[in-house]
Amino acid sequence: MENSSDDYRIQAFDLDTQMLLKTALKDPGSVNLEKVSNIIMDQSFKDQVFSKEAGRICYTIVQAEAKQNGSVFRRNLLNRLQLEFKEREETRGRSLQEWVCFVTFICNIFDYLKVNNMPMVALVHPVFDCLMRLAQPDALMNEEEVDCLVLQLHRIGEQLEKMNAPRMDELFFLLRDGFLLQEGLTSMARLLLLEILEFRAGGWLLSSTAHKYYYSEIAD
Amino acid sequence: MENSSDDYRIQAFDLDTQMLLKTALKDPGSVNLEKVSNIIMDQSFKDQVFSKEAGRICYTIVQAEAKQNGSVFRRNLLNRLQLEFKEREETRGRSLQEWVCFVTFICNIFDYLKVNNMPMVALVHPVFDCLMRLAQPDALMNEEEVDCLVLQLHRIGEQLEKMNAPRMDELFFLLRDGFLLQEGLTSMARLLLLEILEFRAGGWLLSSTAHKYYYSEIAD
Repeated sequence: MENSSDDYRIQAFDLDTQMLLKTALKDPGSVNLEKVSNIIMDQSFKDQVFSKEAGRICYTIVQAEAKQNGSVFRRNLLNRLQLEFKEREETRGRSLQEWVCFVTFICNIFDYLKVNNMPMVALVHPVFDCLMRLAQPDALMNEEEVDCLVLQLHRIGEQLEKMNAPRMDELFFLLRDGFLLQEGLTSMARLLLLEILEFRAGGWLLSSTAHKYYYSEIAD
Repeated sequence: MENSSDDYRIQAFDLDTQMLLKTALKDPGSVNLEKVSNIIMDQSFKDQVFSKEAGRICYTIVQAEAKQNGSVFRRNLLNRLQLEFKEREETRGRSLQEWVCFVTFICNIFDYLKVNNMPMVALVHPVFDCLMRLAQPDALMNEEEVDCLVLQLHRIGEQLEKMNAPRMDELFFLLRDGFLLQEGLTSMARLLLLEILEFRAGGWLLSSTAHKYYYSEIAD
C-alpha cells in the first residue's frame, strides 16, 4: 500500500516516460512540464481507459507545481483543452473513438481539478457543450457515444447541475426527446438512457430496486 | 360553499336517485343501503368520470352508517367488489371501458376508505393485481389502459408502495420491460410510462423541470 498515491495507470507508457511522469509527480519543477502535459493528453485522446482516470494524475501534478509556485503544467493543459474543444466537430468526424476519449478526458478534468473545492467555472460550458453534442439525434444512434454520455452523467451530473441547472434541464429535455421520439436507438442505448433518466429523477441516485433492475437482471 | 361537503357528482342520476343518495348521505339508516351501494357501483362501472370520484361519496356514507352502528353499505360494497374482481378478466374481454372503470373505482375506494387512517389491507393485493394486469404487454398496447394505470399510480402509488414495496418493484420491473422491450407502443403511451417512471424515481414526485417537460411543452 506504500505507493498507493502514486498508483496511477502509467503502465501503458514506455519506461522513460513512466520515469518522467513519476518525477513530475514528485518534483515537477525539475522536468519539462509542457512536455509532460502533452504526453498525458496525447495518451488520453487515444486511450479510453487512461482518459477515465487522467484527471487524477493531472490534479496531483497541478498541486505539486503550485507548491513550487509553478503553473506551466496547468496552463498548458487548459490551453490545449481549449484548442481541442474548438476542433471537436472535426475530431468527431475523423474518429468517434478520439472524440469519446476527448469528452471523457475533459469531464475527468472537470471532476478532479478543483479550485477551492469547486469545479472550474471555465470548464462548465465546454463540458455541457460536449454532453449536449452527445445527446443530438445522430450521436444517440452510436452506442459508444451514449455509453460515454451516461458515464459522464453518472460521474459529474450532480456537480454539473449545481453549476448550471438550466443547462442540465436542457440536456435532459434532449434526452427525453431522443428517447421518446427517435427511431432506431439500439436496445442497449435505450436501457442506458432510461437508467440515467431515473438516476437524475432520483436526485442523482438510483433506488435500490432500480439498481436491481438495471444491474442484477444481467445475471438472471 | 354551504353544501360543499354534499357536492358529489350525482347529477348523472335521475332526480329520484339523487334524492335517495342525498338521504343516504345524511340519514343512511332510513334508506335501503344495499340498493344505494349497487346504484353507485353500477354507475361507476360504466361512467369513468364518476368512478374517479365515487370513493368519496362511499366514504361519507360508510362514515354516516358507522355513526348509526350500521355496516350494510360497506359490506355490500366490499362483497360486490370482490365478485367483480374475480370476474375481471371476463369484464376486460367484454369491454375495455368497463374494465378501466372497475380498476378506477377499486383504486378510488382504496384511496378513500381508510381504517384508522390506513388503507384497507384487504384491498392491497386486488389493487396490485389490477395494476399488474394493466402492465402486461397486451394492455400496454391500449392507450386507455396505460392512461388508467398511470392515473392510479399518480394517485395511490405512494400509499401502495408503503403497503407492499416488493409488489411495487415487481410492477415497475414490468413497466420498464414493456417500455424497453416492447414494440408498437404508441408515442403517448411511451410518454405516459416515462413520466411515471421518473415520477416514482423522484419519490412519487415530479421535479419541476420534468413537470415542465411533460406538461408545458404541450403548449409550445
